[in-house]
Formats: sequence, structure tokens, C-alpha cells
Amino acid sequence: MLIAKVIGTTVATIKDPKLTGRKLLVLRQTDEHGAPFGKPYVAIDTVDAGAGDLVLTAAGSSARQTDITKDTPVDTVIMAIIDSLEVDGKISFQKSE
Amino acid sequence: MLIAKVIGTTVATIKDPKLTGRKLLVLRQTDEHGAPFGKPYVAIDTVDAGAGDLVLTAAGSSARQTDITKDTPVDTVIMAIIDSLEVDGKISFQKSE
Amino acid sequence: MLIAKVIGTTVATIKDPKLTGRKLLVLRQTDEHGAPFGKPYVAIDTVDAGAGDLVLTAAGSSARQTDITKDTPVDTVIMAIIDSLEVDGKISFQKSE
Amino acid sequence: MLIAKVIGTTVATIKDPKLTGRKLLVLRQTDEHGAPFGKPYVAIDTVDAGAGDLVLTAAGSSARQTDITKDTPVDTVIMAIIDSLEVDGKISFQKSE
Amino acid sequence: MLIAKVIGTTVATIKDPKLTGRKLLVLRQTDEHGAPFGKPYVAIDTVDAGAGDLVLTAAGSSARQTDITKDTPVDTVIMAIIDSLEVDGKISFQKSE
Repeated sequence: MLIAKVIGTTVATIKDPKLTGRKLLVLRQTDEHGAPFGKPYVAIDTVDAGAGDLVLTAAGSSARQTDITKDTPVDTVIMAIIDSLEVDGKISFQKSE
Repeated sequence: MLIAKVIGTTVATIKDPKLTGRKLLVLRQTDEHGAPFGKPYVAIDTVDAGAGDLVLTAAGSSARQTDITKDTPVDTVIMAIIDSLEVDGKISFQKSE
Repeated sequence: MLIAKVIGTTVATIKDPKLTGRKLLVLRQTDEHGAPFGKPYVAIDTVDAGAGDLVLTAAGSSARQTDITKDTPVDTVIMAIIDSLEVDGKISFQKSE
Repeated sequence: MLIAKVIGTTVATIKDPKLTGRKLLVLRQTDEHGAPFGKPYVAIDTVDAGAGDLVLTAAGSSARQTDITKDTPVDTVIMAIIDSLEVDGKISFQKSE
Repeated sequence: MLIAKVIGTTVATIKDPKLTGRKLLVLRQTDEHGAPFGKPYVAIDTVDAGAGDLVLTAAGSSARQTDITKDTPVDTVIMAIIDSLEVDGKISFQKSE
């Protein structure tokens, strides 16, 4: 899984019927401190994530292993919202209240 | 999913029989403003996308989760046409009428 | 799918039994003009492609969605030979007769 | 599979129900000497790996081929803890007791 | 598939039970001349490859399409030992006797 930050939203009227009503969020991968890098990508949300959240995304067929994404043409899913990350014995990221 | 811009079309007479009659479009990945970068790739179209459209593409086995692409040897599908993108609270891309 | 040019062939006596009699070609990815870049990779041929041809390759489980590659341990397939590419309203590649 | 070093842990209260009770570790890919490089990624642990361990991670649908990860939306699994690596006839990494 | 050179071996006592008795080799991708580049990766061997061999590796779910790797949490398999490569009409690699 990748650590990523939710940075925005997508509006798409014309899309595969299985995507109707689904939330497609824009993300950027981050390091262990939540600092974004690289180009944006888009994932389907299954955990009610919001802008600014640090999340985990799973890609490939694994993205279809949730109730929401079964048999759906999506290749990336947000499947967890990160509360905190501990790296090398220190808290490297802590979600703000 | 990747944000990508449709930049062209492919003509291929000799191909897997399951691809007969299918539209294979040329794309380049873009950032959240629709600015392309990187090398072109090709995806099968399922939403009647056209040149200049900003779209979402899904890769891997997820590309076969549409009525058009089931059991077909394609690894990338266009499954949505983007109307607009909002990033960091601002509209970063808006489809022209 | 990637646009790629067939640049060579592979000979392998010791291989998975399902690969017996199959043609494994060496390719390099190209841009929309057919100019190669990057390192070579190998794909199983299902469309009788030859050296110099510009082709499309599909990767991952999609590579197994042809009669020739079903249940076979190959992760990349040549599933179309490109006749021409049109990008930004101009023919960027045309197969020579 | 990638050679990777476990560098930390993830806490996530809100997540896919199938992830309840699972350990999601933070890793960085390493070379054959165990020297990390690149950005961190996250994998589900199935072998009771701990901080500092050098491990192997498998990605994609292969990450779901364990008893713990079956049908779970995870795309990377730790499936082995490395005792030693031998490269070019020399021990390039040896786990400390 | 990637062209790769076997450069070493992995010892791992703690691992997924399905990996018991399997050979996990360390490889580096090579160009068409067999010259390695990039970081090492690990694949399960199904063709009795040895150190120094140039081989083909298949990734993803395709890595599980052999008798040895069925239902196993491995994402890369060695499925052929290369005898020779011909690129641009010349032998670019020939296995030494």
C-alpha cells in the first residue's frame, strides 16, 4: 500500500455505470511524515476520507476486494485512514484532532 | 486511476479477435490541471471519449471489469470522462463546453 | 497498453512446458512516432509480429486473455500490430508497406 | 518480490473491516546489503516481522494468497523474513542474532 | 517479461508455509547483452536456474501459473533460461557452455 494525502475531488458525469454515486478522490503519495511528492492519482473512497486526510491506498485487483468496489473498473482504493505512523521508534505523523 | 488526456487514435488491422470494433485511444498522463507529461500509452475506450478529453484510466485486471472489456486482452480502460477537478479547495480543471 | 517496437527474438530451451512452441519477442517501448526508449522487455506473440513492427503490448493478467496465453506464466502479450497512429490531428506513425 | 526493511508501524482506526486486528508495517526497499532506498510503502504482515527485520514483500493479487490476506483489500504482503543473502558468491547480508 | 541475471540466493527460515522447499533467487534486470542494471529483486525458480544464468521473469498473477507456484504468495517467477538473444539481426547474448 502507499501512504497518500487526499488533495481533492473529481466530478465525472459520463462514467461506467458501476461508478454511479461513488466518490473518486485525488491523492498524492507522501513520505512517512505526510509530505506529498510526485504526480496526483485518483482512488475510489470506501472509508469516508476527506480532504487533508492521510490514507492508505491499495492498487490492482486488491482494489476490488471491498463491498463497494466488487466487480468495478477501479484500480486503486482508499481502504484506511491513518491515525499515526511510527518510524525508527518516533512518531513521524499524527493526525490532528 | 490516472488522470490522462486523449491525444490520438490507433489503427490496427491485425489484432486479437476480441478487439474487433473497439476504439483504442492514445493518451498521456496529466497533472491536476490537465497538463500532460511522460510518454504516451494506449487504452480501450468504454465511455465514447474524444480527442482533447481529460479522462480517468484504470489499469490491470480492473480494466476488464466493464461490459466491453470482459475477457479481453487489454490492460488499460477509459472508464470516466472528467468534468472538473478540485484540488486544495480550488477548481484546477474545468471541461470546456 | 504500451506502444512498442519488436527488436529481436529469444531462444530458450529450458522453460515452462506451456511455453513450448511459443514465440517470445524482444521489444522496446516507443513514443507516438515509433522512436524506441528505455530498456528491452519480452512479450509472447499472438499476432505473428515480426522484427521492426510497431505493436501494442498488454501486461499483467490481461496478457493471459488470449487463446494462446490462457493459464500460461507470461505477463506481457503482443495483441495488435499497429498500422498507424494519429496524434494531435496528424499521422505520427505509418507502417511502411 | 522486493527485499525490504521494516522501519515502522501504522495505526488506523477507520479501515476496511477485513483489516481489523491486522498489522500494517512501514517498509523501505533495500539493496542486497540491506541498505534502504526510495520512499516508504506499507505491507500487511503474515510472518510476525518486527522493526529492523529484512523481509521479502510480494505485491498485487499475490499478496492475497495467504490465510491471513485472502479476499482482503491489501496489495502488498510480507511473506518471508530474510536470514541471509548471498550475492556473487559472498554473504551480502546476515541477520544479527 | 524482463530479461534478468541470477546473482544470488536467499535464505529465509520464517516464511509462508507454501514456500517451504522453494528456491528464491536474487536477480538484477539486464539489457539485451546481459548487462545488469538497477536494484536487485527476488523470484521463485521453476526451471532450476543457477547463478550467472540469464533468465526471463514474469510478474504479477502470471507468476502463479506454474505447477510450483499455484496459489503461492509470490509475485515473480523465473519461467525460462535464455540460451541466446538476437537483436537488430545480431546475436546480442549467447549462453556460455
